[in-house]
Amino acid sequence: MGLVVSSYSVKMHLKAPEHQVAGHIAKDGKPGPLVDDKGRFFKPLQGDSRGEIEVKFYESFSSNTEIPDHIRRYFPVYHGTQAVEGSDGAAMIVLENLLSQYSKPSVMDVKMGSRTWYPEASEEYIQKCLRKDARSTTVSSGFRISGFEVYDHKELSFWKPDRKLLNGIKVDGVRLALRKFVSSNTLSDTSSKPDSAFASSVYGGSNGVLTQLLELKTWFENQTFYHFNSCSILIIYENESIHDDGARAQVKLVDFAHVHDGNGVIDHNFLGGLCSFINFVRDILQSSDESTDN
Amino acid sequence: MGLVVSSYSVKMHLKAPEHQVAGHIAKDGKPGPLVDDKGRFFKPLQGDSRGEIEVKFYESFSSNTEIPDHIRRYFPVYHGTQAVEGSDGAAMIVLENLLSQYSKPSVMDVKMGSRTWYPEASEEYIQKCLRKDARSTTVSSGFRISGFEVYDHKELSFWKPDRKLLNGIKVDGVRLALRKFVSSNTLSDTSSKPDSAFASSVYGGSNGVLTQLLELKTWFENQTFYHFNSCSILIIYENESIHDDGARAQVKLVDFAHVHDGNGVIDHNFLGGLCSFINFVRDILQSSDESTDN
Repeated sequence: MGLVVSSYSVKMHLKAPEHQVAGHIAKDGKPGPLVDDKGRFFKPLQGDSRGEIEVKFYESFSSNTEIPDHIRRYFPVYHGTQAVEGSDGAAMIVLENLLSQYSKPSVMDVKMGSRTWYPEASEEYIQKCLRKDARSTTVSSGFRISGFEVYDHKELSFWKPDRKLLNGIKVDGVRLALRKFVSSNTLSDTSSKPDSAFASSVYGGSNGVLTQLLELKTWFENQTFYHFNSCSILIIYENESIHDDGARAQVKLVDFAHVHDGNGVIDHNFLGGLCSFINFVRDILQSSDESTDN
Repeated sequence: MGLVVSSYSVKMHLKAPEHQVAGHIAKDGKPGPLVDDKGRFFKPLQGDSRGEIEVKFYESFSSNTEIPDHIRRYFPVYHGTQAVEGSDGAAMIVLENLLSQYSKPSVMDVKMGSRTWYPEASEEYIQKCLRKDARSTTVSSGFRISGFEVYDHKELSFWKPDRKLLNGIKVDGVRLALRKFVSSNTLSDTSSKPDSAFASSVYGGSNGVLTQLLELKTWFENQTFYHFNSCSILIIYENESIHDDGARAQVKLVDFAHVHDGNGVIDHNFLGGLCSFINFVRDILQSSDESTDN
């Protein structure tokens, strides 16, 4: 499929996004993602076939009439591709900026699946993925936490664990990270146990993360359109507003540079990981219920 | 864990089972499995750690009070281990003979999971599994058909595809095999399309395969006791009696030589494959509904 890139002639102000927790950033002269003030996110097309695959996915998904609306809302809105001035005229995918409606968003990126490779990939890519999958919790747990950032209520600042530290965590580290992500006590203080104060309002409830994950799971049990290799679930919530209009917790799927045709088979790799992730979230909800009861 | 092997002193008649579709057979002086006339199946303990792991699993599972009865029925009843005379006194696992109640059983062995290896295994074993998984439908579909045997209604004999032929099949071959397994027309005749005549009575209905698979799925969404690496689902039905008391379709889990502790994580690898297998079975049921309507 060829890329249709329309030139961006209107002058506008683009800046680097504030809360990126994983994925590619501006480096070695290559442009990073940008956001404008109209709620749009500009993602540079990745080199080799990845950029093309991601555009192909967004084109297919946005025109696929068999995607129900209640599932479509878990994906960023797609606004096509554009050449962006001042960024060397680089072609970018224009998406909805998922964070534009939040003032102090806490964000977590969870890479799904018990493998990030796929049979169609090169031997070199497969071996690289296999090593990374085995070192992380991908093989053992069916997903890994790629990055997260929490708004620290006490310190009035964002707390973001070091990426290298995060890469080395095992199953227990995942449990701890999922608790820290919804805790109100100072996170840089490793001596105190995370209080999971926001667990029930973020993970629980009729609009919470668990409900949204279960809705996605039902779709994944049947959909055979796409295999979401190496795709992430993004979890976003607003810590500030947590006591007025709710946590506004959102689950979104992102990163489609390795999506392939499902060929009539469900995405059992994503689905298995999703079911495992659901169990981790449910465990935290159940244990925080117990601690409230005591 | 040490194995407790009691000596078998009572004289009895053991013979090789008639309908083994996959797994180890008597070869190179090593004993194969045996059955008696009291409904018991004797499985030789496999060498290295596999036999020990399998016994450990059966001991744990049979004494695990948290396994609900409606799930326990999907596993062979375990009668301990015994040294069997005339078989060089080899230690054997004594199980329920799953086929003893059938006269002309059709049997299929489906190895579950999108990988058959696990992180704790040796590098050599992992590489061997990776190659086999990629060649088969394990990676693509989350399971592979290891073997099957169908009672051919027209020929009044059993039909069993060549194992080498079966090893090479892709997704389309899996669909075809799942249809042949429930068809009444002559199976050796490759020119005629399988009629899926028994699809609704074997796969469908309130006691059928799909219902049983869905019950297992619900359990796998929550159970974190065991990771059933390289484990198979056995599907059995009676072709002869299909028009009187029903197909008596049974789903059973077998082969636990690579089961590991779940460590609080669900078996996302087995579960993902199970969901995929469920979708294949459901597809056949839906398309046979359509052909009946026309």
